Amino acid sequence: MNRERAFNLLHECGLDAVVATSYENLTYVSGAYIYTQRTVPTRMSAILLTRNGDATYVFCSIEESLIRDQSWIADLRGYREFAEDPMDILAALLREKKLDGQRVGLERRFLGADHVGKLELQGAAAHYVDSTDYFKKLRMIKTEAEIALLERAATTTRKAVEAAFTAARPGDTEKQIANNIVHHLFDMGCDETAFITLAAGANGSRAHHLPDHTRLEPGQVIRTDLGGFFSGYYSDLARTYVVGPPSKEQAATYRSLGRIYRDVIAKMTVGRPVSDLYRICRDGFEGEGLAFFMPHIGHSIGVELHELPMVQPKDDTVLQENMVFNIEPFYRDTQGQGYHVEDLILITARGPRVLSGHLAPEEIPVIA
Amino acid sequence: MNRERAFNLLHECGLDAVVATSYENLTYVSGAYIYTQRTVPTRMSAILLTRNGDATYVFCSIEESLIRDQSWIADLRGYREFAEDPMDILAALLREKKLDGQRVGLERRFLGADHVGKLELQGAAAHYVDSTDYFKKLRMIKTEAEIALLERAATTTRKAVEAAFTAARPGDTEKQIANNIVHHLFDMGCDETAFITLAAGANGSRAHHLPDHTRLEPGQVIRTDLGGFFSGYYSDLARTYVVGPPSKEQAATYRSLGRIYRDVIAKMTVGRPVSDLYRICRDGFEGEGLAFFMPHIGHSIGVELHELPMVQPKDDTVLQENMVFNIEPFYRDTQGQGYHVEDLILITARGPRVLSGHLAPEEIPVIA
Repeated sequence: MNRERAFNLLHECGLDAVVATSYENLTYVSGAYIYTQRTVPTRMSAILLTRNGDATYVFCSIEESLIRDQSWIADLRGYREFAEDPMDILAALLREKKLDGQRVGLERRFLGADHVGKLELQGAAAHYVDSTDYFKKLRMIKTEAEIALLERAATTTRKAVEAAFTAARPGDTEKQIANNIVHHLFDMGCDETAFITLAAGANGSRAHHLPDHTRLEPGQVIRTDLGGFFSGYYSDLARTYVVGPPSKEQAATYRSLGRIYRDVIAKMTVGRPVSDLYRICRDGFEGEGLAFFMPHIGHSIGVELHELPMVQPKDDTVLQENMVFNIEPFYRDTQGQGYHVEDLILITARGPRVLSGHLAPEEIPVIA
Repeated sequence: MNRERAFNLLHECGLDAVVATSYENLTYVSGAYIYTQRTVPTRMSAILLTRNGDATYVFCSIEESLIRDQSWIADLRGYREFAEDPMDILAALLREKKLDGQRVGLERRFLGADHVGKLELQGAAAHYVDSTDYFKKLRMIKTEAEIALLERAATTTRKAVEAAFTAARPGDTEKQIANNIVHHLFDMGCDETAFITLAAGANGSRAHHLPDHTRLEPGQVIRTDLGGFFSGYYSDLARTYVVGPPSKEQAATYRSLGRIYRDVIAKMTVGRPVSDLYRICRDGFEGEGLAFFMPHIGHSIGVELHELPMVQPKDDTVLQENMVFNIEPFYRDTQGQGYHVEDLILITARGPRVLSGHLAPEEIPVIA
């Protein structure tokens, strides 16, 4: 995180202070990756940033050594789980910082109603407003360090998928191929898996089919979509294969999707509204004669899998340098088979750059 | 889930209806495992159960095929992401079910304040109370199917750890061993990793150290604590090893921890309050001359990693047949090295049963 920007942005957003409480914002603001904030959501933490440059971290004392090692925040307030309530400590902190009558941003879409109620009753007599816009603005432009990490994550994920499918054979099960992807992912430095879909043939009718013992049969279209964690950041990538030589229709469908894909990506230039990309994609489907049903065609990524801006018709945020987007057109044929390609794209002044190394191929790759 | 119990429990808890919104409760109530409810928390879903036996699922239309395949709920209300707001649909549903003046349970600790505010304003004119107690009671007694799944998950995780450490050698890195655990986990049917700590020597000073390129050196104590997902359910297991022959002190410390561990587990009998187990453990540490600092010494597990009841001093829930608990005493020596053992225990009328197959060994196992 760019600290200077985090404090300056409070002013820009008309906030006197902001409180991070979600796993994503805690990771982002603190710089410390504490996976229990994701796996044990009842164990609450909070970071308060105020307009005069104070930063305070309220956290479960179990995690103190990790926070001391990894975070820039010096004012640390550990609480003993089950003996103390972190919301009491946060409420006292809000009073201590004398925020009465001021505007304090809370994650009102994610912080439970009873917790917000407690802060309203026991914290400073402040206006507790929603902080969605603040965190969107803070996180949507990536730092050089974030771009380097996201590039490593995306490239590793692409290579893991390519390696596993290069070694795949007709007759393998979905689960065998998925496991090989995971083996390669971890061997190349992934910390944890986040999700894995891998669907052969009609299993593609489920948007998020878990790989099972279905065997790959000649003529089937295989779709995979997966992500891992790399130092707290997500990767996300999709590829489509066919078992044995594709039918004319399969080859043509994939080629159409690839044309739409490349057209959208080519138009990812600074200054264009995100919603334009959605429309270009939708029009591309129409032009290629493919049914279009996607509520979004991509998303930013970072400490959250689907970060803002989302590439959806109502998000008019303008593309800026150092934004990143997963672009992922998806098509399902009449047999339920999924065609899906997805790579990570960086917005630069000189145009889009593929952070996953190279785009999904133009012709459907074959498992033989 | 036992459906009859879910509806009867509404009556017992003085509720006229309940709304599930967290990933965990959506998975539990619906029977459908939709991992995007965990990875994309902005894409909200809700299930309403009413006292007269109605069940309705509000969900993102992308997931419809998966829900139709896996869930018993027939009244399905898909919404189109970004075009419709699921909270509008839920508010309309609460009005449709005529819950005015009635008691409706919400996950007020997890459902964002602005969402609850919307339901209070636009839903039925009901009393929106907290549902924590309802879901605790519903989920804490496991069904036969859940016990079988949790046993498979726990045993698989133990075997993966044992296999990787059997093959480990001094000089290996933490990450190599962790990757081997993951390889075995996936090969034995794990769907996704949830978290992995593996710390050699002083890296144990961080509660949740991520395995890195630290090499195992003679004399080091190695601690691992990890979990995976199996059809939406968690596993969680910890083991401790030493590189080369242990010092007398290392052997004695591990043996002490093992005695405390076995003593706590032996006392996991029907009718005993959970808080008793915490005190037995604390007294055991005192008796063995080991410093005790744990806020909890275990937890239930299922669709959530730390489920209620928690084995902490203030939870007086009484042990009942078909409850399960991860028991996990932990000790950190003066060099920061972690000693940690953890297995999954089922409460039965005939006493505790080890669902992970067998407990961590009594003598510290050696990497040679």
